[in-house]
Amino acid sequence: PILSSLGDYAAAARQAMTPVAAAYFMGGAGDEVTLAQNRAAYDRYALVPRILTGMTGGSTRLSLLGRELTHPILLAPVAYQRMAHPHGESGTATAAAALEALMVLSCQASEPMEDVARAGTTCRWFQIYMQPTRDATLTLVRRAEAAGYEAIVVTVDAPISGVRNREMRVGYELPDGIAPVNLQGLPPPPPLPEGGNAVFDHFMANAPGWADIEWLRRQTGLHLILKGVLHPDDARRAVSAGADALIVSNHGGRVLDTSVPTLVQLPAVVDAVQGAVPVLMDGGITRGTDIIKARALGATAVLIGRPIVEALSVRGAQGVAHILRLLRDELEIAMALCGCSSLDMIGPELLHEM
Amino acid sequence: PILSSLGDYAAAARQAMTPVAAAYFMGGAGDEVTLAQNRAAYDRYALVPRILTGMTGGSTRLSLLGRELTHPILLAPVAYQRMAHPHGESGTATAAAALEALMVLSCQASEPMEDVARAGTTCRWFQIYMQPTRDATLTLVRRAEAAGYEAIVVTVDAPISGVRNREMRVGYELPDGIAPVNLQGLPPPPPLPEGGNAVFDHFMANAPGWADIEWLRRQTGLHLILKGVLHPDDARRAVSAGADALIVSNHGGRVLDTSVPTLVQLPAVVDAVQGAVPVLMDGGITRGTDIIKARALGATAVLIGRPIVEALSVRGAQGVAHILRLLRDELEIAMALCGCSSLDMIGPELLHEM
Amino acid sequence: PILSSLGDYAAAARQAMTPVAAAYFMGGAGDEVTLAQNRAAYDRYALVPRILTGMTGGSTRLSLLGRELTHPILLAPVAYQRMAHPHGESGTATAAAALEALMVLSCQASEPMEDVARAGTTCRWFQIYMQPTRDATLTLVRRAEAAGYEAIVVTVDAPISGVRNREMRVGYELPDGIAPVNLQGLPPPPPLPEGGNAVFDHFMANAPGWADIEWLRRQTGLHLILKGVLHPDDARRAVSAGADALIVSNHGGRVLDTSVPTLVQLPAVVDAVQGAVPVLMDGGITRGTDIIKARALGATAVLIGRPIVEALSVRGAQGVAHILRLLRDELEIAMALCGCSSLDMIGPELLHEM
Amino acid sequence: PILSSLGDYAAAARQAMTPVAAAYFMGGAGDEVTLAQNRAAYDRYALVPRILTGMTGGSTRLSLLGRELTHPILLAPVAYQRMAHPHGESGTATAAAALEALMVLSCQASEPMEDVARAGTTCRWFQIYMQPTRDATLTLVRRAEAAGYEAIVVTVDAPISGVRNREMRVGYELPDGIAPVNLQGLPPPPPLPEGGNAVFDHFMANAPGWADIEWLRRQTGLHLILKGVLHPDDARRAVSAGADALIVSNHGGRVLDTSVPTLVQLPAVVDAVQGAVPVLMDGGITRGTDIIKARALGATAVLIGRPIVEALSVRGAQGVAHILRLLRDELEIAMALCGCSSLDMIGPELLHEM
Ligand SMILES: Cc1cc2nc3c(=O)[nH]c(=O)nc-3n(C[C@H](O)[C@H](O)[C@H](O)COP(=O)(O)O)c2cc1C
Ligand SMILES: Cc1cc2nc3c(=O)[nH]c(=O)nc-3n(C[C@H](O)[C@H](O)[C@H](O)COP(=O)(O)O)c2cc1C
Ligand SMILES: Cc1cc2nc3c(=O)[nH]c(=O)nc-3n(C[C@H](O)[C@H](O)[C@H](O)COP(=O)(O)O)c2cc1C
Ligand SMILES: Cc1cc2nc3c(=O)[nH]c(=O)nc-3n(C[C@H](O)[C@H](O)[C@H](O)COP(=O)(O)O)c2cc1C
Repeated sequence: PILSSLGDYAAAARQAMTPVAAAYFMGGAGDEVTLAQNRAAYDRYALVPRILTGMTGGSTRLSLLGRELTHPILLAPVAYQRMAHPHGESGTATAAAALEALMVLSCQASEPMEDVARAGTTCRWFQIYMQPTRDATLTLVRRAEAAGYEAIVVTVDAPISGVRNREMRVGYELPDGIAPVNLQGLPPPPPLPEGGNAVFDHFMANAPGWADIEWLRRQTGLHLILKGVLHPDDARRAVSAGADALIVSNHGGRVLDTSVPTLVQLPAVVDAVQGAVPVLMDGGITRGTDIIKARALGATAVLIGRPIVEALSVRGAQGVAHILRLLRDELEIAMALCGCSSLDMIGPELLHEM
Repeated sequence: PILSSLGDYAAAARQAMTPVAAAYFMGGAGDEVTLAQNRAAYDRYALVPRILTGMTGGSTRLSLLGRELTHPILLAPVAYQRMAHPHGESGTATAAAALEALMVLSCQASEPMEDVARAGTTCRWFQIYMQPTRDATLTLVRRAEAAGYEAIVVTVDAPISGVRNREMRVGYELPDGIAPVNLQGLPPPPPLPEGGNAVFDHFMANAPGWADIEWLRRQTGLHLILKGVLHPDDARRAVSAGADALIVSNHGGRVLDTSVPTLVQLPAVVDAVQGAVPVLMDGGITRGTDIIKARALGATAVLIGRPIVEALSVRGAQGVAHILRLLRDELEIAMALCGCSSLDMIGPELLHEM
Repeated sequence: PILSSLGDYAAAARQAMTPVAAAYFMGGAGDEVTLAQNRAAYDRYALVPRILTGMTGGSTRLSLLGRELTHPILLAPVAYQRMAHPHGESGTATAAAALEALMVLSCQASEPMEDVARAGTTCRWFQIYMQPTRDATLTLVRRAEAAGYEAIVVTVDAPISGVRNREMRVGYELPDGIAPVNLQGLPPPPPLPEGGNAVFDHFMANAPGWADIEWLRRQTGLHLILKGVLHPDDARRAVSAGADALIVSNHGGRVLDTSVPTLVQLPAVVDAVQGAVPVLMDGGITRGTDIIKARALGATAVLIGRPIVEALSVRGAQGVAHILRLLRDELEIAMALCGCSSLDMIGPELLHEM
Repeated sequence: PILSSLGDYAAAARQAMTPVAAAYFMGGAGDEVTLAQNRAAYDRYALVPRILTGMTGGSTRLSLLGRELTHPILLAPVAYQRMAHPHGESGTATAAAALEALMVLSCQASEPMEDVARAGTTCRWFQIYMQPTRDATLTLVRRAEAAGYEAIVVTVDAPISGVRNREMRVGYELPDGIAPVNLQGLPPPPPLPEGGNAVFDHFMANAPGWADIEWLRRQTGLHLILKGVLHPDDARRAVSAGADALIVSNHGGRVLDTSVPTLVQLPAVVDAVQGAVPVLMDGGITRGTDIIKARALGATAVLIGRPIVEALSVRGAQGVAHILRLLRDELEIAMALCGCSSLDMIGPELLHEM
């Protein structure tokens, strides 16, 4: 079939993926309320287009943490991409480089971070979860530094696994040959202590705290980015702790179901940080107009998650390149129709709340 | 199939139950508007999770009427459980004890209250409807005292049967061998008086009034709990009448259809009693996040009704234990993600009204 | 099947009626937006039940225009009832009498008004449309007086036929043997004048004005009731013109589609007339709780339209009696659960707007 | 089937058209959110009908740019009508003349503008897009002047093609024999410049600016109308630039998806121009009541787009005449029921926001 939008790829992916892969890549936590609401939040805003405006010399350029980017569409960290397609993370990285999209590699990637960095020069940020020991965390950071990554994205919204019923129903487990290769050799989580509560005293005992972020800040010269910030107080504290940027995210609705949609929370976070650091966001982005709305509410740039692996599953690296092309074109067209020849011209006055 | 949530059990129960049992156990009054809205009320609130918080030593513990409970999930009184599964109320009680859940036994139980009390040590509260005569009421209370129950839950929201169209359509009646055994031997309701109106002068003439509650309060040293309070004025009066706790409930939408959803009314009741007694609530709880929302709006603990008999019908006592396990896990995970290491940390600032 | 609610009858009627009859009896104007919204308006209000209230001596009694009624459920004028069932209007009248329901006979009845009056002693009001000539109108009124009707209900919301697409699609026309027998012999509408506009100069030229109402008021000692009032200014003017009662109605959504739902407009009309005359209402009533809500917003009584002919089509007069029984029971039960032992106790404080 | 409303024609058109034609004529941009919301906007307003009002001498007449019109229903410019039916634009023009509807001919018509002008005397306005060169634009305007058109409608909301996924999915292209004949011989757009951005530096470089409008204003004595205005600031500027009328439009949701619905934006535009010029609107009109609502919110007249080609595809010119007849009848009936004997009596007090 002719695939003309990210939605078309999502529909095709439902066919292309095994049920188990679809449950993992496309599902969310619980009743998938947040998954749906993340997406629906964009439709609560309409755009008021402008007419007869000049556009020559326009572009989608921005600068982010010292880099000039061609456009504000980043690839979110998504684990185990070889389960979607043999091209895996390297394929995604190739596509990202071709479309000049900054890519964030997951620490749960199914390929070594060094290989992916080589495959695509725009794969510049490495995402980690704080490891059970600081040594283990540092091992990952040092490897990322050596491989040329420029930022460490610490994902803080998933200290414990969400309740992923869709995965449970299909008995999801990693297929043979797919593994978090970058984590191999690191120490396993400590055993369950006697008598304690599994959630509070075991899983969460390994969860990081602000002190760990501050410690990490001191260990590396790379940019430090916190991913999964939703509360304005946490945003403020992240800035104090030395974060160079924040990502407003609820992990695509994969951790806490009925979590507040990211677009809803974005303005409060933007307001809290007062411009001290760039605020990025992800969750439900599938259209160029979504990006305009996120920008209008204060986001510097956006990330896409599921669309990557959906496209990958349907057409490999070529699919990823295609959806990036589609999204870039949609963004440029929407900007032109809204009378904005640069991202900085996109403001809240474009929005009409429905 | 793999059953990973209370919703999965509900779906399976639709298969496991006979149509007649399903109409009784899963249906509601009228057009089932309240049944649906009880549930939908939770989704009108989103949660704002917190990050990087410490959790060690956390728990879901609370104390309620002098007892320390491991968690705030109670089993609501649900009649005729042997119609759902041969394990019946004893099975439920066993499961409740295993998962440390306080159970409320219905006076319309299909097994003798003494047997159920023995089967599960956490079956501590006995629910009654005020009987046509005070003597009959007292007979039930004395038996409950003797059997070791610690509280009498007086259900006040069903002085007359609701209009249960789903049951009528399938010609619902109690199957052979299932009976309200604890009520046997008590006097039947008086005959319809000459010339009066059936509803007002007959059924409702047997309905209890505040004086009956005050009388009952004087008869027993057990805790007295009113179940089915929705109006703040009634809540205040219940406290004056000597109630030790209230349960905000509309009987799971089984009595008055289009009755206000319980979560909607909860804050007004909490506000009215001003902390004088604990306020519990039930109606539509199927997720750990629902419990957080109820707590955030002032509930001390919650009860589940239909999930018990749905689980019972699918897997007997084991099913009931399983849903309690699921719900406890979901609650703990949600608390951890919201940065709450104790129930007391759950407040309204966690909620975002959608 | 077991029919346990008005909704059950509606479902059964869809089977029992011919497609043509169903289009006429169950359809509405245009896209049937008002038809749906009339009904949906009730669900926008929830009820807050009360507990432990006394009910002895309670009743649904009211007095209306000098008559004591057992309950506030009236039968709206519905044309051509013999098309629904051979029992026709006489059957409905018999059922109405048995259930003590005041019935309004349509001037487009398929049976002579004298026969229907004899068939059921509670068929007391006669509905007319103002006729092309005052003489013709007077002829109808005199016949009604002679037949013992106590009120003339002038329907003012349909001076021109609505756009009834559902009927057009099935090519609706009156079947052989069904006719507006009470109108036979009256002069036909005048022919289309040369050159004028069909709607404005022809159909509407025959439409009544306030002067006609004032004229009619002077012609008869019967109660005069205006049916189809929605605007508060019209309500005030109706009172000045001598109306003894008003019926807030949009003709069941059969005339102007997207007309405001009656329950929405009721409070403004009640407020406008300041208690000078009773305000009745119809549109979408199918549950006892709907009646409570209408009463809480100021209606003295309510009328049902489609439910009559739906029941008639399924079970003849017995069906009509049954739905009246169901509705009366539902109303009494709902009143009891709301702590109201009389209609006068039903007030706005029972409602919670959702 | 019996076709009794514009909606009936739309349903029939889905059968009558080829999939490719249906995608072009009935689709919208992106996810068709705006297409749906344009329509849904009308249902957010209910009408409050009036009773017992005089209507003699009433009409739907209005005057617009010096012409007396029988009614306020205009035919919007819709391209390539021969693809819908061999009758093409001439057929539409014949129907428009018969029903006294002012027609706007698209510059992308599939028939020569002179032929269409001859076929229907009410085809009085010619729509253009600003051409790549001013000479080309002038060529079109001069031909329109010569052919007797009285106004130039400049469509300004589509400087670049929208993202029309529905068309892409079916591989839409113009069938053999259908072409924009009025544009033949005009210079093609200039080639893509080296190194520039396709959207901003190529397509949009050809897009008109306010200076072009001001230039055009000086070139012709015809009325100048801007189509596609949504922002109040743009409306004000259009008036300053010499526009004689504005059309509030989002191109039927075919250009920027999630654009604000036209009815939502209408009041702000009306308010901005302060009566300086007439404000027309289009988007989603399918009912007489929609026209009343647009009028009540300040529109002088309305245009219909898709309904034309849907009717054309089903029954050729006769279909177009029929839907115009239906819409005129619906409008007159709705006015009569709202107590408005002229368009000027239609005001915001008729509306109730739902
Ligand atoms: C299949 C899948 C795997 C993911 N893996 C990671 C991960 O390893 N690390 C991480 O920080 N986020 C991960 N995420 C979250 C994404 O980075 C991102 O926050 C989310 O997908 C954005 O929402 P969207 O999918 O609606 O675009 C994952 C998301 C998906 C769908
Ligand atoms: C099948 C069934 C039987 C019930 N029986 C009783 C009962 O005997 N006594 C009582 O007080 N409540 C009874 N209830 C109401 C429950 O205690 C509880 O209030 C309600 O089920 C809570 O709503 P939920 O089912 O949505 O969790 C019953 C509920 C159900 C579904
Ligand atoms: C089939 C049908 C015929 C009707 N005929 C009349 C009539 O002859 N005169 C009249 O005043 N109202 C007539 N009505 C309107 C009803 O009196 C009443 O206003 C409406 O049905 C109330 O709404 P409901 O059907 O939702 O209860 C008719 C309604 C229906 C459904
Ligand atoms: C198939 C199609 C072709 C159109 N072509 C043109 C056009 O050539 N020029 C133009 O200004 N508008 C064009 N429009 C937009 C219409 O003029 C009008 O703004 C829109 O259709 C109104 O919305 P409606 O279709 O919901 O009535 C077109 C619309 C459709 C549906």
